[in-house]
Amino acid sequence: MKKGKLFVISGPSGVGKGTLCKRLMELRPLRFSVSMTTRSPRPGEEEGVNYYFVSREFFQKTLDENGFLEHAEVFQNRYGTPKAEVLQYLESGQDMLLDIDVQGALQVKRNYPEAILVFILPPSLSALSARLAERGTETKEMLEHRLNCARHEISFLPEYRYRVINNDLETAVAELTAIVDAEHCRLQDDAAELIEALN
Amino acid sequence: MKKGKLFVISGPSGVGKGTLCKRLMELRPLRFSVSMTTRSPRPGEEEGVNYYFVSREFFQKTLDENGFLEHAEVFQNRYGTPKAEVLQYLESGQDMLLDIDVQGALQVKRNYPEAILVFILPPSLSALSARLAERGTETKEMLEHRLNCARHEISFLPEYRYRVINNDLETAVAELTAIVDAEHCRLQDDAAELIEALN
Repeated sequence: MKKGKLFVISGPSGVGKGTLCKRLMELRPLRFSVSMTTRSPRPGEEEGVNYYFVSREFFQKTLDENGFLEHAEVFQNRYGTPKAEVLQYLESGQDMLLDIDVQGALQVKRNYPEAILVFILPPSLSALSARLAERGTETKEMLEHRLNCARHEISFLPEYRYRVINNDLETAVAELTAIVDAEHCRLQDDAAELIEALN
Repeated sequence: MKKGKLFVISGPSGVGKGTLCKRLMELRPLRFSVSMTTRSPRPGEEEGVNYYFVSREFFQKTLDENGFLEHAEVFQNRYGTPKAEVLQYLESGQDMLLDIDVQGALQVKRNYPEAILVFILPPSLSALSARLAERGTETKEMLEHRLNCARHEISFLPEYRYRVINNDLETAVAELTAIVDAEHCRLQDDAAELIEALN
């Protein structure tokens, strides 16, 4: 049985990552990983779909058992990617998709070096700034803060295997799809197995 | 200026490599590298299109000057891929395509480690045998010889970055195209440059 691939997608806020992931999942059979969190469900959020909602105790116990591929604390709420579930799917041949920030992606890479890290870039920082401003929901200070975060995130680009520039949406989707398809043609430890199977 | 990529395609005789390379070049702007040879032109062969036809002295001089990415001797004729020409095209941003055997591909990898090696596999050795027999031009001994060569070539599979199984032609063409596109999204030493360009 051929193992699935773990794709990790990061990119600054406003870069269009959500739309890209959605489109990619319409085109290729990737499964989105559900995170665990200690925060309360918001109206409309479903257990096991948006998140696994757990107590702080359960989260800590999972962490103590080395049960996360990555985890973080944001505004006193904890978030983590459950390792066992992701690894089981991969083992069964299912490709997985994680949409996480740079710090999380680097943790995943440490815990699962075969992970394929893809960074979504804006065409330029001024284009990103314009897109964030278009939302119309951000104060000038928040915009400046987001741009500084973007600069900081982008500085980790050399840790990633691929970069996709989201200038034209369709081009970016095609590039993401090419990355998924090419990674399935990539030889890793499976060459000997393949040679065997040919006979 | 972004450098071009060097794609090296190998695969056993009868696997359909020629057709695949032709289709790939219709879909993507790759330039086929012209080899240098000491053998005489056959009717219809053009200088600079099929080969550069040179004297044994000129070939040896080029070799002495370390002027080949790879070279080989077959039936007392010498063949080689001129390094200067390929590197010039790559430098100018042009992607290049080499269709060479395993020994040649490994020499290219040594001389130009950024080369992207792709191995075209048959669905199985019996499928390859059937395809070779279909040609109707081979004796039983020649067929046996070609299959032994195929087995030997395939044993070098672990040296390659990608493998494409040529079962269905259109699928194989799509995979090759995905590999070319994904390699253009791949980060190498250009991350710092990209970050710079974003500002």
